Amino acid sequence: MRKGELTRAAILDVALDLASRDGLEGLTIGLLADKMCMSKSGVFAHFGSREDLQIEVLKLYHHQFEQEVFYPSMREVRGLPRLQAMFAHWVRRVTVEIASGCIYISGAVEYDDRPGAIREALIDMVLAWQNALLRCVEQARELGHLRSDTDPMQLVFEMYGLVLALHHDARFIKRPGAVDRAQIGFERLLQSYLPSDSSTSAEIAESRPALHLLHSAANKAAPSIK
Amino acid sequence: MRKGELTRAAILDVALDLASRDGLEGLTIGLLADKMCMSKSGVFAHFGSREDLQIEVLKLYHHQFEQEVFYPSMREVRGLPRLQAMFAHWVRRVTVEIASGCIYISGAVEYDDRPGAIREALIDMVLAWQNALLRCVEQARELGHLRSDTDPMQLVFEMYGLVLALHHDARFIKRPGAVDRAQIGFERLLQSYLPSDSSTSAEIAESRPALHLLHSAANKAAPSIK
Repeated sequence: MRKGELTRAAILDVALDLASRDGLEGLTIGLLADKMCMSKSGVFAHFGSREDLQIEVLKLYHHQFEQEVFYPSMREVRGLPRLQAMFAHWVRRVTVEIASGCIYISGAVEYDDRPGAIREALIDMVLAWQNALLRCVEQARELGHLRSDTDPMQLVFEMYGLVLALHHDARFIKRPGAVDRAQIGFERLLQSYLPSDSSTSAEIAESRPALHLLHSAANKAAPSIK
Repeated sequence: MRKGELTRAAILDVALDLASRDGLEGLTIGLLADKMCMSKSGVFAHFGSREDLQIEVLKLYHHQFEQEVFYPSMREVRGLPRLQAMFAHWVRRVTVEIASGCIYISGAVEYDDRPGAIREALIDMVLAWQNALLRCVEQARELGHLRSDTDPMQLVFEMYGLVLALHHDARFIKRPGAVDRAQIGFERLLQSYLPSDSSTSAEIAESRPALHLLHSAANKAAPSIK
Protein backbone atom coordinates (compact mmCIF):
# COMPACT_ATOMS: atom_id res chain seq x y z
CA MET A 1 0.00 0.00 0.00
CA ARG A 2 1.32 3.44 -0.87
CA LYS A 3 1.52 6.16 1.77
CA GLY A 4 -1.52 7.97 0.38
CA GLU A 5 -3.59 4.80 0.57
CA LEU A 6 -2.42 4.11 4.12
CA THR A 7 -3.42 7.62 5.21
CA ARG A 8 -6.78 7.28 3.51
CA ALA A 9 -7.40 3.92 5.23
CA ALA A 10 -6.38 5.40 8.60
CA ILE A 11 -8.77 8.34 8.13
CA LEU A 12 -11.59 5.94 7.24
CA ASP A 13 -10.98 3.83 10.34
CA VAL A 14 -11.26 6.86 12.60
CA ALA A 15 -14.27 8.11 10.62
CA LEU A 16 -16.03 4.77 11.14
CA ASP A 17 -15.43 4.99 14.89
CA LEU A 18 -16.84 8.52 14.98
CA ALA A 19 -19.85 7.60 12.83
CA SER A 20 -20.62 4.57 15.01
CA ARG A 21 -20.60 6.78 18.08
CA ASP A 22 -22.24 9.99 16.83
CA GLY A 23 -24.06 8.83 13.70
CA LEU A 24 -23.09 9.45 10.09
CA GLU A 25 -24.53 12.96 10.32
CA GLY A 26 -22.29 13.67 13.31
CA LEU A 27 -19.28 13.05 11.10
CA THR A 28 -17.58 16.29 10.05
CA ILE A 29 -14.33 16.93 8.25
CA GLY A 30 -13.32 19.32 11.06
CA LEU A 31 -13.79 16.72 13.81
CA LEU A 32 -11.97 14.13 11.75
CA ALA A 33 -9.06 16.50 11.04
CA ASP A 34 -8.75 17.17 14.79
CA LYS A 35 -8.69 13.45 15.60
CA MET A 36 -6.11 12.78 12.88
CA CYS A 37 -3.98 15.84 13.76
CA MET A 38 -4.32 16.88 10.12
CA SER A 39 -5.58 20.03 8.45
CA LYS A 40 -9.09 20.06 7.00
CA SER A 41 -7.65 20.45 3.52
CA GLY A 42 -5.44 17.42 4.21
CA VAL A 43 -8.55 15.33 4.87
CA PHE A 44 -10.36 16.85 1.88
CA ALA A 45 -7.47 15.79 -0.34
CA HIS A 46 -8.48 12.16 0.25
CA PHE A 47 -12.26 12.60 -0.09
CA GLY A 48 -13.88 15.00 -2.50
CA SER A 49 -16.67 15.99 -0.13
CA ARG A 50 -18.22 15.20 3.23
CA GLU A 51 -20.85 13.10 1.45
CA ASP A 52 -18.18 11.08 -0.36
CA LEU A 53 -16.52 10.46 2.99
CA GLN A 54 -19.81 9.33 4.55
CA ILE A 55 -20.43 6.90 1.70
CA GLU A 56 -16.89 5.52 1.95
CA VAL A 57 -17.50 4.96 5.67
CA LEU A 58 -20.67 3.06 4.84
CA LYS A 59 -18.77 0.91 2.31
CA LEU A 60 -16.15 0.10 4.92
CA TYR A 61 -18.87 -0.85 7.41
CA HIS A 62 -20.55 -3.04 4.79
CA HIS A 63 -17.25 -4.73 4.01
CA GLN A 64 -16.70 -5.52 7.71
CA PHE A 65 -20.27 -6.81 8.04
CA GLU A 66 -19.70 -9.14 5.06
CA GLN A 67 -16.45 -10.39 6.55
CA GLU A 68 -17.84 -11.05 10.03
CA VAL A 69 -21.41 -12.12 9.33
CA PHE A 70 -22.06 -13.04 5.72
CA TYR A 71 -18.99 -15.00 4.58
CA PRO A 72 -18.64 -17.20 7.69
CA SER A 73 -22.35 -18.08 7.41
CA MET A 74 -22.03 -19.00 3.74
CA ARG A 75 -19.52 -21.66 4.73
CA GLU A 76 -22.33 -23.53 6.52
CA VAL A 77 -24.45 -26.06 4.68
CA ARG A 78 -27.53 -24.64 3.01
CA GLY A 79 -30.86 -24.40 4.76
CA LEU A 80 -31.50 -24.23 8.48
CA PRO A 81 -27.84 -24.59 9.60
CA ARG A 82 -26.86 -21.61 7.45
CA LEU A 83 -29.84 -19.55 8.65
CA GLN A 84 -28.92 -20.29 12.26
CA ALA A 85 -25.32 -19.30 11.55
CA MET A 86 -26.46 -16.03 9.93
CA PHE A 87 -28.48 -15.15 13.01
CA ALA A 88 -25.72 -16.19 15.43
CA HIS A 89 -23.01 -14.18 13.62
CA TRP A 90 -25.36 -11.20 13.34
CA VAL A 91 -26.19 -11.28 17.05
CA ARG A 92 -22.53 -11.63 17.88
CA ARG A 93 -21.65 -8.58 15.77
CA VAL A 94 -24.44 -6.46 17.26
CA THR A 95 -23.30 -7.55 20.73
CA VAL A 96 -19.77 -6.34 20.01
CA GLU A 97 -21.29 -3.12 18.67
CA ILE A 98 -23.26 -2.43 21.86
CA ALA A 99 -20.38 -0.20 22.96
CA SER A 100 -20.32 1.77 19.72
CA GLY A 101 -23.64 1.31 17.93
CA CYS A 102 -24.64 -0.40 14.69
CA ILE A 103 -24.53 1.95 11.71
CA TYR A 104 -27.27 0.04 9.86
CA ILE A 105 -29.65 0.46 12.82
CA SER A 106 -28.76 4.03 13.80
CA GLY A 107 -28.55 5.01 10.11
CA ALA A 108 -32.07 3.71 9.50
CA VAL A 109 -33.35 6.27 12.01
CA GLU A 110 -30.98 9.06 10.92
CA TYR A 111 -31.88 8.76 7.24
CA ASP A 112 -35.49 7.59 7.36
CA ASP A 113 -36.70 10.86 5.88
CA ARG A 114 -33.47 12.47 4.75
CA PRO A 115 -33.34 11.75 1.00
CA GLY A 116 -30.06 11.63 -0.89
CA ALA A 117 -27.09 9.52 -1.85
CA ILE A 118 -26.30 8.35 1.70
CA ARG A 119 -29.82 7.12 2.32
CA GLU A 120 -29.76 5.29 -1.03
CA ALA A 121 -26.43 3.63 -0.27
CA LEU A 122 -27.60 2.63 3.21
CA ILE A 123 -30.86 1.14 1.92
CA ASP A 124 -28.96 -0.83 -0.76
CA MET A 125 -26.76 -2.36 1.92
CA VAL A 126 -29.59 -3.21 4.33
CA LEU A 127 -31.59 -4.72 1.46
CA ALA A 128 -28.57 -6.76 0.36
CA TRP A 129 -28.44 -8.32 3.83
CA GLN A 130 -32.20 -8.86 3.96
CA ASN A 131 -32.09 -10.46 0.51
CA ALA A 132 -29.33 -12.81 1.62
CA LEU A 133 -31.54 -13.82 4.56
CA LEU A 134 -34.54 -14.25 2.25
CA ARG A 135 -32.58 -16.51 -0.12
CA CYS A 136 -31.43 -18.61 2.80
CA VAL A 137 -34.99 -19.01 4.13
CA GLU A 138 -36.19 -19.97 0.64
CA GLN A 139 -33.48 -22.64 0.43
CA ALA A 140 -34.39 -23.96 3.88
CA ARG A 141 -38.00 -24.20 2.74
CA GLU A 142 -37.06 -25.98 -0.50
CA LEU A 143 -34.92 -28.43 1.47
CA GLY A 144 -37.85 -29.22 3.77
CA HIS A 145 -36.12 -27.71 6.81
CA LEU A 146 -38.97 -25.20 7.12
CA ARG A 147 -42.68 -25.67 6.44
CA SER A 148 -43.71 -25.39 2.80
CA ASP A 149 -46.06 -22.49 3.61
CA THR A 150 -43.28 -20.45 5.27
CA ASP A 151 -43.41 -16.82 4.14
CA PRO A 152 -39.72 -15.83 3.86
CA MET A 153 -40.45 -12.10 4.17
CA GLN A 154 -42.44 -12.71 7.35
CA LEU A 155 -39.67 -14.78 8.92
CA VAL A 156 -36.97 -12.25 7.99
CA PHE A 157 -39.16 -9.40 9.32
CA GLU A 158 -39.36 -11.17 12.68
CA MET A 159 -35.63 -11.99 12.75
CA TYR A 160 -34.92 -8.33 12.07
CA GLY A 161 -37.25 -7.36 14.91
CA LEU A 162 -35.35 -9.57 17.36
CA VAL A 163 -32.04 -7.92 16.43
CA LEU A 164 -33.56 -4.42 16.64
CA ALA A 165 -34.97 -5.26 20.09
CA LEU A 166 -31.55 -6.58 21.16
CA HIS A 167 -29.87 -3.34 20.04
CA HIS A 168 -32.58 -1.25 21.74
CA ASP A 169 -32.54 -3.05 25.10
CA ALA A 170 -28.79 -3.55 25.36
CA ARG A 171 -27.65 -0.17 24.04
CA PHE A 172 -30.40 2.25 25.06
CA ILE A 173 -32.01 0.72 28.16
CA LYS A 174 -28.84 -1.17 29.11
CA ARG A 175 -30.91 -4.07 30.44
CA PRO A 176 -28.94 -7.30 30.92
CA GLY A 177 -30.06 -10.50 29.22
CA ALA A 178 -30.98 -9.06 25.82
CA VAL A 179 -28.72 -11.47 23.91
CA ASP A 180 -30.38 -14.47 25.58
CA ARG A 181 -33.80 -13.04 24.84
CA ALA A 182 -32.93 -12.58 21.16
CA GLN A 183 -31.71 -16.17 20.96
CA ILE A 184 -34.74 -17.61 22.79
CA GLY A 185 -36.98 -15.57 20.48
CA PHE A 186 -35.21 -16.98 17.43
CA GLU A 187 -35.57 -20.56 18.66
CA ARG A 188 -39.28 -19.99 19.30
CA LEU A 189 -39.62 -18.39 15.87
CA LEU A 190 -37.95 -21.34 14.12
CA GLN A 191 -40.05 -23.84 16.08
CA SER A 192 -43.22 -22.32 14.70
CA TYR A 193 -41.93 -22.68 11.13
CA LEU A 194 -40.65 -26.25 11.41
CA PRO A 195 -42.50 -28.97 9.52
CA SER A 196 -44.51 -30.91 12.09
CA ASP A 197 -43.25 -34.27 10.77
CA SER A 198 -39.56 -33.43 10.73
CA SER A 199 -37.71 -34.73 13.74
CA THR A 200 -34.36 -33.89 12.17
CA SER A 201 -35.25 -30.25 11.72
CA ALA A 202 -36.72 -30.14 15.20
CA GLU A 203 -33.45 -31.41 16.62
CA ILE A 204 -31.51 -28.80 14.70
CA ALA A 205 -33.76 -25.99 15.90
CA GLU A 206 -33.89 -27.13 19.50
CA SER A 207 -30.18 -26.74 19.83
CA ARG A 208 -28.87 -23.31 20.84
CA PRO A 209 -28.66 -21.26 17.68
CA ALA A 210 -25.68 -22.40 15.79
CA LEU A 211 -22.75 -21.16 17.81
CA HIS A 212 -21.38 -24.69 17.66
CA LEU A 213 -22.03 -24.73 13.94
CA LEU A 214 -19.88 -21.71 13.25
CA HIS A 215 -16.74 -23.79 13.18
CA SER A 216 -17.96 -26.66 11.04
CA ALA A 217 -16.03 -27.71 8.04
CA ALA A 218 -18.14 -27.26 4.91
CA ASN A 219 -16.08 -24.74 2.98
CA LYS A 220 -18.08 -23.60 0.01
CA ALA A 221 -17.10 -20.78 -2.27
CA ALA A 222 -18.73 -17.73 -0.75
CA PRO A 223 -20.46 -15.37 -3.16
CA SER A 224 -20.75 -11.68 -2.31
CA ILE A 225 -23.60 -10.46 -0.12
CA LYS A 226 -25.13 -8.80 -3.18
CA MET B 1 -56.23 29.14 29.34
CA ARG B 2 -54.43 32.43 29.58
CA LYS B 3 -52.69 33.91 26.55
CA GLY B 4 -49.24 32.92 27.86
CA GLU B 5 -50.34 29.31 28.28
CA LEU B 6 -51.86 29.26 24.81
CA THR B 7 -48.63 30.54 23.28
CA ARG B 8 -46.62 28.00 25.23
CA ALA B 9 -48.89 25.16 24.07
CA ALA B 10 -48.66 26.38 20.46
CA ILE B 11 -44.85 26.47 20.66
CA LEU B 12 -44.81 22.94 22.09
CA ASP B 13 -47.04 21.63 19.31
CA VAL B 14 -44.70 22.98 16.65
CA ALA B 15 -41.67 21.76 18.61
CA LEU B 16 -43.14 18.24 18.73
CA ASP B 17 -43.62 18.29 14.95
CA LEU B 18 -40.03 19.42 14.43
CA ALA B 19 -38.65 16.85 16.89
CA SER B 20 -40.63 14.03 15.26
CA ARG B 21 -39.17 14.98 11.89
CA ASP B 22 -35.59 15.94 12.77
CA GLY B 23 -35.08 14.26 16.14
CA LEU B 24 -34.96 15.93 19.55
CA GLU B 25 -31.38 17.00 18.89
CA GLY B 26 -32.50 18.71 15.69
CA LEU B 27 -34.74 20.97 17.75
CA THR B 28 -33.28 24.45 18.18
CA ILE B 29 -34.76 27.62 19.65
CA GLY B 30 -33.78 29.46 16.45
CA LEU B 31 -35.67 27.07 14.15
CA LEU B 32 -38.66 27.15 16.45
CA ALA B 33 -38.67 30.96 16.60
CA ASP B 34 -38.63 31.06 12.77
CA LYS B 35 -41.56 28.63 12.53
CA MET B 36 -43.55 30.61 15.13
CA CYS B 37 -42.64 34.02 13.66
CA MET B 38 -41.34 34.94 17.12
CA SER B 39 -38.02 36.23 18.38
CA LYS B 40 -35.64 33.77 20.03
CA SER B 41 -36.02 35.65 23.32
CA GLY B 42 -39.80 35.31 22.94
CA VAL B 43 -39.42 31.52 22.81
CA PHE B 44 -36.89 31.54 25.65
CA ALA B 45 -39.41 33.42 27.82
CA HIS B 46 -41.56 30.27 27.86
CA PHE B 47 -38.79 27.70 28.36
CA GLY B 48 -35.75 28.31 30.51
CA SER B 49 -33.36 26.47 28.21
CA ARG B 50 -33.20 24.29 25.12
CA GLU B 51 -33.00 21.22 27.37
CA ASP B 52 -36.13 22.27 29.27
CA LEU B 53 -37.89 22.65 25.94
CA GLN B 54 -36.75 19.20 24.79
CA ILE B 55 -38.01 17.62 28.01
CA GLU B 56 -41.37 19.42 27.74
CA VAL B 57 -41.66 18.06 24.18
CA LEU B 58 -41.01 14.56 25.52
CA LYS B 59 -43.70 15.02 28.20
CA LEU B 60 -46.20 16.16 25.57
CA TYR B 61 -45.35 13.11 23.44
CA HIS B 62 -45.76 10.83 26.47
CA HIS B 63 -49.12 12.42 27.26
CA GLN B 64 -50.34 11.80 23.70
CA PHE B 65 -49.06 8.21 23.81
CA GLU B 66 -51.01 7.63 27.04
CA GLN B 67 -54.16 9.11 25.54
CA GLU B 68 -54.00 7.13 22.32
CA VAL B 69 -52.47 3.83 23.40
CA PHE B 70 -52.53 3.29 27.16
CA TYR B 71 -55.92 4.58 28.36
CA PRO B 72 -58.04 3.02 25.60
CA SER B 73 -56.32 -0.33 26.26
CA MET B 74 -56.97 -0.12 30.00
CA ARG B 75 -60.68 -0.01 29.27
CA GLU B 76 -60.46 -3.58 27.95
CA VAL B 77 -60.92 -6.52 30.30
CA ARG B 78 -57.73 -7.74 31.94
CA GLY B 79 -55.55 -10.40 30.43
CA LEU B 80 -55.28 -11.33 26.77
CA PRO B 81 -57.96 -8.92 25.45
CA ARG B 82 -56.15 -6.00 27.07
CA LEU B 83 -52.76 -7.17 25.77
CA GLN B 84 -54.17 -7.46 22.26
CA ALA B 85 -55.66 -3.97 22.58
CA MET B 86 -52.31 -2.56 23.74
CA PHE B 87 -50.55 -4.02 20.72
CA ALA B 88 -53.29 -2.92 18.29
CA HIS B 89 -53.36 0.68 19.59
CA TRP B 90 -49.55 0.79 19.60
CA VAL B 91 -49.33 -0.45 16.00
CA ARG B 92 -52.01 2.02 14.98
CA ARG B 93 -50.08 4.90 16.55
CA VAL B 94 -46.78 3.86 14.94
CA THR B 95 -48.60 3.53 11.62
CA VAL B 96 -49.89 7.11 11.90
CA GLU B 97 -46.35 8.15 12.83
CA ILE B 98 -44.79 6.60 9.71
CA ALA B 99 -45.01 10.04 8.09
CA SER B 100 -43.30 11.80 11.00
CA GLY B 101 -41.40 9.23 13.07
CA CYS B 102 -41.84 7.89 16.59
CA ILE B 103 -39.91 9.89 19.18
CA TYR B 104 -39.48 6.87 21.47
CA ILE B 105 -37.85 4.87 18.66
CA SER B 106 -35.75 7.63 17.10
CA GLY B 107 -34.87 8.96 20.57
CA ALA B 108 -33.58 5.54 21.62
CA VAL B 109 -30.96 5.80 18.86
CA GLU B 110 -30.28 9.53 19.34
CA TYR B 111 -29.67 9.20 23.08
CA ASP B 112 -28.27 5.69 23.38
CA ASP B 113 -24.89 7.02 24.43
CA ARG B 114 -25.62 10.68 25.09
CA PRO B 115 -26.01 10.87 28.87
CA GLY B 116 -28.06 13.59 30.53
CA ALA B 117 -31.50 14.69 31.59
CA ILE B 118 -33.15 14.04 28.21
CA ARG B 119 -31.88 10.48 28.03
CA GLU B 120 -33.09 9.88 31.61
CA ALA B 121 -36.55 11.28 30.86
CA LEU B 122 -36.80 9.23 27.66
CA ILE B 123 -35.77 6.01 29.40
CA ASP B 124 -38.31 6.62 32.20
CA MET B 125 -41.07 6.95 29.63
CA VAL B 126 -40.08 3.89 27.57
CA LEU B 127 -39.76 1.85 30.78
CA ALA B 128 -43.18 3.05 31.94
CA TRP B 129 -44.70 1.65 28.75
CA GLN B 130 -42.71 -1.58 28.96
CA ASN B 131 -43.76 -1.98 32.61
CA ALA B 132 -47.40 -1.51 31.66
CA LEU B 133 -46.98 -4.28 29.07
CA LEU B 134 -45.22 -6.50 31.64
CA ARG B 135 -48.04 -6.05 34.17
CA CYS B 136 -50.59 -6.92 31.52
CA VAL B 137 -48.72 -10.09 30.52
CA GLU B 138 -48.46 -11.09 34.19
CA GLN B 139 -52.20 -10.66 34.60
CA ALA B 140 -52.89 -12.70 31.46
CA ARG B 141 -50.68 -15.44 32.87
CA GLU B 142 -52.43 -15.35 36.28
CA LEU B 143 -55.81 -15.54 34.56
CA GLY B 144 -54.71 -18.60 32.61
CA HIS B 145 -54.87 -16.81 29.24
CA LEU B 146 -51.14 -17.47 28.78
CA ARG B 147 -49.10 -20.51 29.77
CA SER B 148 -47.97 -20.57 33.39
CA ASP B 149 -44.30 -20.68 32.31
CA THR B 150 -44.63 -17.53 30.19
CA ASP B 151 -41.68 -15.19 30.77
CA PRO B 152 -43.25 -11.69 30.64
CA MET B 153 -39.96 -9.96 29.83
CA GLN B 154 -39.37 -12.35 26.92
CA LEU B 155 -42.84 -11.76 25.48
CA VAL B 156 -42.56 -7.97 25.84
CA PHE B 157 -39.07 -8.07 24.25
CA GLU B 158 -40.53 -9.82 21.21
CA MET B 159 -43.55 -7.49 21.02
CA TYR B 160 -41.13 -4.56 21.09
CA GLY B 161 -39.12 -6.16 18.29
CA LEU B 162 -42.19 -6.46 16.08
CA VAL B 163 -42.98 -2.75 16.52
CA LEU B 164 -39.35 -1.77 15.89
CA ALA B 165 -39.34 -3.88 12.72
CA LEU B 166 -42.61 -2.25 11.62
CA HIS B 167 -41.13 1.22 12.12
CA HIS B 168 -37.90 0.19 10.34
CA ASP B 169 -39.56 -1.38 7.29
CA ALA B 170 -42.35 1.14 6.83
CA ARG B 171 -40.39 4.32 7.55
CA PHE B 172 -36.86 3.56 6.38
CA ILE B 173 -37.21 0.91 3.65
CA LYS B 174 -40.77 2.03 2.78
CA ARG B 175 -41.77 -1.57 2.04
CA PRO B 176 -45.53 -2.16 1.91
CA GLY B 177 -47.16 -4.76 4.15
CA ALA B 178 -45.21 -4.07 7.35
CA VAL B 179 -48.38 -3.54 9.43
CA ASP B 180 -49.73 -6.93 8.37
CA ARG B 181 -46.39 -8.56 9.12
CA ALA B 182 -46.33 -7.05 12.62
CA GLN B 183 -49.87 -8.33 13.26
CA ILE B 184 -49.15 -11.81 11.89
CA GLY B 185 -45.99 -11.93 14.01
CA PHE B 186 -47.97 -10.97 17.11
CA GLU B 187 -50.60 -13.67 16.47
CA ARG B 188 -47.85 -16.27 16.01
CA LEU B 189 -46.15 -15.01 19.15
CA LEU B 190 -49.34 -15.31 21.22
CA GLN B 191 -50.07 -18.77 19.81
CA SER B 192 -46.77 -20.05 21.14
CA TYR B 193 -47.61 -18.74 24.64
CA LEU B 194 -51.19 -20.04 24.82
CA PRO B 195 -51.97 -22.88 27.21
CA SER B 196 -52.38 -26.00 25.08
CA ASP B 197 -55.66 -26.94 26.81
CA SER B 198 -57.38 -23.58 26.50
CA SER B 199 -59.75 -23.41 23.57
CA THR B 200 -61.14 -20.07 24.79
CA SER B 201 -57.75 -18.41 24.75
CA ALA B 202 -56.97 -20.00 21.41
CA GLU B 203 -60.13 -18.49 19.95
CA ILE B 204 -59.25 -15.09 21.32
CA ALA B 205 -55.76 -15.24 19.90
CA GLU B 206 -56.76 -16.57 16.51
CA SER B 207 -58.89 -13.52 15.87
CA ARG B 208 -57.16 -10.53 14.26
CA PRO B 209 -55.50 -8.62 17.06
CA ALA B 210 -58.17 -6.85 18.92
CA LEU B 211 -59.25 -4.10 16.57
CA HIS B 212 -62.82 -5.24 17.14
CA LEU B 213 -62.15 -5.24 20.86
CA LEU B 214 -61.14 -1.61 20.99
CA HIS B 215 -64.74 -0.47 21.13
CA SER B 216 -66.02 -2.89 23.73
CA ALA B 217 -67.84 -1.64 26.75
CA ALA B 218 -65.85 -2.51 29.88
CA ASN B 219 -65.11 0.94 31.25
CA LYS B 220 -62.75 0.58 34.14
CA ALA B 221 -61.06 3.45 35.89
CA ALA B 222 -57.79 3.93 34.01
CA PRO B 223 -54.68 4.38 36.14
CA SER B 224 -51.74 6.32 34.79
CA ILE B 225 -49.16 4.59 32.62
CA LYS B 226 -46.68 4.89 35.50
